[in-house]
Amino acid sequence: MDGQTVDLTALMQDIGQRARAASARLAVTTPEQRVAGLRAAAFALRADAATILDANARDMAAGQAKGLTPALLDRLRLDEGRLEAIAKGLEDVADLPDPLGAVMADWTRPNGLRIQRVRVPLGVIGIIYESRPNVTADAGGLCVKSGNAAILRGGSESLHSSSTIVTAMRRGLVEGGLPADAVQLVPTTDRAAVGILLTMTDFVDVIIPRGGKSLTARVAAESRVPVIKHLDGICHVYLDRAADPAKGRAIALNAKMRRTGICGAMETLLVHRDVAAAQLPALIEDLVGVGCEVRGDATVQALDARVLPADDADWDTEYLDAILSVKVVEGVDEAIAHIERHGSHHTDSIVTEDAATAERFLARVDSGIVLWNASTQFADGGEFGFGAEIGISTGKLHARGPVGAEQLTSYKYVVRGDGQTRP
Amino acid sequence: MDGQTVDLTALMQDIGQRARAASARLAVTTPEQRVAGLRAAAFALRADAATILDANARDMAAGQAKGLTPALLDRLRLDEGRLEAIAKGLEDVADLPDPLGAVMADWTRPNGLRIQRVRVPLGVIGIIYESRPNVTADAGGLCVKSGNAAILRGGSESLHSSSTIVTAMRRGLVEGGLPADAVQLVPTTDRAAVGILLTMTDFVDVIIPRGGKSLTARVAAESRVPVIKHLDGICHVYLDRAADPAKGRAIALNAKMRRTGICGAMETLLVHRDVAAAQLPALIEDLVGVGCEVRGDATVQALDARVLPADDADWDTEYLDAILSVKVVEGVDEAIAHIERHGSHHTDSIVTEDAATAERFLARVDSGIVLWNASTQFADGGEFGFGAEIGISTGKLHARGPVGAEQLTSYKYVVRGDGQTRP
Repeated sequence: MDGQTVDLTALMQDIGQRARAASARLAVTTPEQRVAGLRAAAFALRADAATILDANARDMAAGQAKGLTPALLDRLRLDEGRLEAIAKGLEDVADLPDPLGAVMADWTRPNGLRIQRVRVPLGVIGIIYESRPNVTADAGGLCVKSGNAAILRGGSESLHSSSTIVTAMRRGLVEGGLPADAVQLVPTTDRAAVGILLTMTDFVDVIIPRGGKSLTARVAAESRVPVIKHLDGICHVYLDRAADPAKGRAIALNAKMRRTGICGAMETLLVHRDVAAAQLPALIEDLVGVGCEVRGDATVQALDARVLPADDADWDTEYLDAILSVKVVEGVDEAIAHIERHGSHHTDSIVTEDAATAERFLARVDSGIVLWNASTQFADGGEFGFGAEIGISTGKLHARGPVGAEQLTSYKYVVRGDGQTRP
Repeated sequence: MDGQTVDLTALMQDIGQRARAASARLAVTTPEQRVAGLRAAAFALRADAATILDANARDMAAGQAKGLTPALLDRLRLDEGRLEAIAKGLEDVADLPDPLGAVMADWTRPNGLRIQRVRVPLGVIGIIYESRPNVTADAGGLCVKSGNAAILRGGSESLHSSSTIVTAMRRGLVEGGLPADAVQLVPTTDRAAVGILLTMTDFVDVIIPRGGKSLTARVAAESRVPVIKHLDGICHVYLDRAADPAKGRAIALNAKMRRTGICGAMETLLVHRDVAAAQLPALIEDLVGVGCEVRGDATVQALDARVLPADDADWDTEYLDAILSVKVVEGVDEAIAHIERHGSHHTDSIVTEDAATAERFLARVDSGIVLWNASTQFADGGEFGFGAEIGISTGKLHARGPVGAEQLTSYKYVVRGDGQTRP
């Protein structure tokens, strides 16, 4: 290893050790201390507004010079309104129900041993995300609320902004009685730092990638630390034979077009053959009217000349755009089979007035979120009442669906006896 | 790839596809069907006793020719009594409370959406274990009870025994109305099959290695599928200044010597300096008397000439043998720090009559199981009342501590609405 690599390894090891020490202290803080620390962090963000916005201006200038797309620049940009929203977000996280210490189960064995399963923090959480300064505060705050130390690795274009945000947050946490190292930012844009973070199994308990497919794929491929991952959201709405036309039309339009860039957006609409002719034309009219490109199979194309042909690749594509693929199916079982074959186990919805068909769909579709007569765009921690989320897990282990403060916890078994030995 | 590798890949892909299909069917079976299938599997094991014992005789002969150690041969060996115990074990698993379908949470949002978190199977579980035929039935049964399809990869020396056991189980499962592919055995001793299994992320939801350190380490290093792992158990007992001498003596002796080869066995005893002279001599007498080698620091050696010197490596060693390292500490905080530095976050116990000290230990020791005035050998799913376990997780994600049927489940969010769209 050349000198720089050695230095980088030492830097990351130091960050890991600090995080581990901070997590041990956080684990025994009181709920009141964590609330006070997060509220003080919000106050510090407001107090440092000028510094943070100045740093963000430098990031923006560099980003423009670098030729970032308008979308990426918009994600990077802060202003007083957005900074206030970030501070308010920290206060909202502070006010969430405390997830720690809850006794999840409590029983006594015949030998008198009393066993309790108690909720505890995960420990140290590494979060790898794109150049979005708001994630720095959101993710750090959610980790602290759940008693975890956070190691944040944001996109390189946001380093100045994130550094000033973390500096302010740490000052606030300390004022609230929490360790400063509860929130650390990797202070380099060297991508090798990510590779090191992903192998620090002694210091990091879980890695959460928050970003696009390529980021998540790299993390999943390289990480030796367990990952809570958010893969793509190929979400479906199935209009059943017994679908209420008005509900179906409103739900499908909302699921696709409310926001096309979020993981809970519908990408494929499945329609029962018996209602395709009756329900699709009005819906296609709505979609085309708001600028959505509709791709369909032969039956769908026959219903509206503006429908483009869908090919096999469409059924496996997360457009994240104003594009919808539409397929006619023979019934709920074909819909379920299509979702199993082409979906991403994220969020899928059925529109029907037939309870038996709905329950069959809800039971057999193997996705983190299954809905009956509701839009897939409700796939969101806030909409679930979690207050804040760090992402939506498409995995089945540990956390599935929206990942909020409670999903950032583990548990331990606390066993109290009076001298029991095992026969 | 040469022809054999291609064939092996195709073989594993076929197993994966069968398992995925079986898991979809299992997920919608009734509790009664799973009970019936497991009971029929137990019946089939008894009916095939002659075939199974004959196959085991061949495995034993090959194992002896291969020069397996007596310990390994004993793990491999079946007889009528052991086979009956395996069948009875399947019936016990059948009679466990059904873990599926439970509504873990149920709330209604202001917009009228009713959200339920419902317990569902994980899907497909790959289990990699040593040449222990009993694990074939135990692990397969626990997976089926929790609605999961199992892909079993046992040690090569047990292939004939495990094949006949799985053949019988599959016949029973079908009689009970379950898919035969709910339990599959990898029918080759080619180690490359494990490498393929660890990368089948489309077909396998979780890998559980059940065996020694080298096996677990290989799986953790190679697996692209999430792993529930069981690393080593460097377990501690801390005799506090306020320890009841009789309790401490009995607990320490039991924690070390009841069974020295299990992960919950104590490997290091920590003793408060103020009670070392009063409590250690009798305990050392007990330990030496039953053939335990005692290694200690200078203070401990001074108390008994039979105590050998402990070096730094001892504090990090899982002996799994009649060897104990003993260290004198200044108090509970030094004990907690030692456990954090040298322990494996598995199981640790404090002996004290001082409730405040006990609660400090229970709160601050970051292990899956923490005990007060009880032996570490209670670290066992059966002792916890889980009925059966597939191992003890030393990880913090998903499952921590004993992994029973409930820990082999995930959840999904079932959301019922009446046409809601997201504003």
